[in-house]
Amino acid sequence: MERDYIFTLEIAVRDYELDSEGIVNNAIYLHYLEHTRHMFCAQAGYSFSQMEADGFMPVVNRIEVDYKTPLRSGDIMLSKLWVETRGVRFIFHQDIFNKKTGALAINAIVSIVSIENGRLGRGEQLVKAFAKYL
Amino acid sequence: MERDYIFTLEIAVRDYELDSEGIVNNAIYLHYLEHTRHMFCAQAGYSFSQMEADGFMPVVNRIEVDYKTPLRSGDIMLSKLWVETRGVRFIFHQDIFNKKTGALAINAIVSIVSIENGRLGRGEQLVKAFAKYL
Amino acid sequence: MERDYIFTLEIAVRDYELDSEGIVNNAIYLHYLEHTRHMFCAQAGYSFSQMEADGFMPVVNRIEVDYKTPLRSGDIMLSKLWVETRGVRFIFHQDIFNKKTGALAINAIVSIVSIENGRLGRGEQLVKAFAKYL
Amino acid sequence: MERDYIFTLEIAVRDYELDSEGIVNNAIYLHYLEHTRHMFCAQAGYSFSQMEADGFMPVVNRIEVDYKTPLRSGDIMLSKLWVETRGVRFIFHQDIFNKKTGALAINAIVSIVSIENGRLGRGEQLVKAFAKYL
Repeated sequence: MERDYIFTLEIAVRDYELDSEGIVNNAIYLHYLEHTRHMFCAQAGYSFSQMEADGFMPVVNRIEVDYKTPLRSGDIMLSKLWVETRGVRFIFHQDIFNKKTGALAINAIVSIVSIENGRLGRGEQLVKAFAKYL
Repeated sequence: MERDYIFTLEIAVRDYELDSEGIVNNAIYLHYLEHTRHMFCAQAGYSFSQMEADGFMPVVNRIEVDYKTPLRSGDIMLSKLWVETRGVRFIFHQDIFNKKTGALAINAIVSIVSIENGRLGRGEQLVKAFAKYL
Repeated sequence: MERDYIFTLEIAVRDYELDSEGIVNNAIYLHYLEHTRHMFCAQAGYSFSQMEADGFMPVVNRIEVDYKTPLRSGDIMLSKLWVETRGVRFIFHQDIFNKKTGALAINAIVSIVSIENGRLGRGEQLVKAFAKYL
Repeated sequence: MERDYIFTLEIAVRDYELDSEGIVNNAIYLHYLEHTRHMFCAQAGYSFSQMEADGFMPVVNRIEVDYKTPLRSGDIMLSKLWVETRGVRFIFHQDIFNKKTGALAINAIVSIVSIENGRLGRGEQLVKAFAKYL
């Protein structure tokens, strides 16, 4: 079920993120997606560095990305997300749009699990921290 | 249908590819995957820079990655692939293994399309170049 | 001779820019410096992509960086610069400060030359474009 | 005083390391330099991850790079170094050559200090570990 976005981050393309074809390299979008998740967590009051200090290590378990319209030099993007839980996984639905044209640049589904003391955890503290967004 | 790998590249983890958790960052694997595809193309006799010179621009259309066992400082990986066509798409099946332990680090399916003169092309030259691998 | 900064860009540290020591990796600062120069050029009315379209290729000729206080997760920086010419070189004086503490993170001197049609050029168009800043 | 190189690492350019000008981005060379130092340390018997485990944190204090001949797609480099101490600093002299043409790509001087328990240390264990190379 589609849900409304709960967080939007504006990010400007940096020229070193382009590859020799003049478009943002495919791997760089994963950086944008991660940065967006981390900024969301910080805004939600539970920063990634705090998680690490608390003994949680959120790790990416699976990622699916559809590349739609390439971003280029000078572009500004709106990176949006919503999140749900499925069992022990946090499923982030993340879409990135070209701010100027409104075109969808990529859509992505990112599955995160919580490693606690070296083992797969239930992420209960995370569920509590993000309760109002789930 | 599973097929045999047709190309293997050995890659050493570089410490700057680690994130603050001490494991290779999730985006970096897309760099490994791309580098493996490009080295495969070069070995197959049709380098990425030659493609660009010929007016082809292979671009990533979709990517799916399952992250299994994190790679760490000092690890060496074996990055393997096989490829098939589906319509105008080239589907690369790419798996990365920890060389020492044999553990699967990630498996990935990467879909590539060929942009020719700014439009989606049939990649006929690519099919010809890679005929014996398809 | 020290001069006043003519451009300031605010940049947030992204967690993937940290290395396993939890501080921003030394190479990443060169990305910050480049991004700052490109944003300065764009604001000055002559974007990097326009330069490329015009047949100019500004390239880094020499760089000196002193690393003072490491930036960490959550930090926001103020990246400042002023520029002068020395012969055919554009010398960018670039300092990055921690916005919150005011501490100097790095200071850098970056020398840029203009390649025109594959050869070292005098960058006359650049001098004209940036005249009021030199 | 110039000294003989004590370590050489062969590295292939990866296409994602190129920028939109088709040459290796200036920041990427710092990654090559760091990777070369870390591989040297590993070969010398004291890996970077072991240093971290021992409570040492070698950090880059200053870097000077002269960019001579750009590396491009398909190029293989020979990354060479020698090292000396100056007070508490380890000074790495690092040069990168194009393997095929022999042309100097960059030369660099990288100053490293050792942070021990959060403070500048004398790096005595490092001096001992690298004694035969100094």
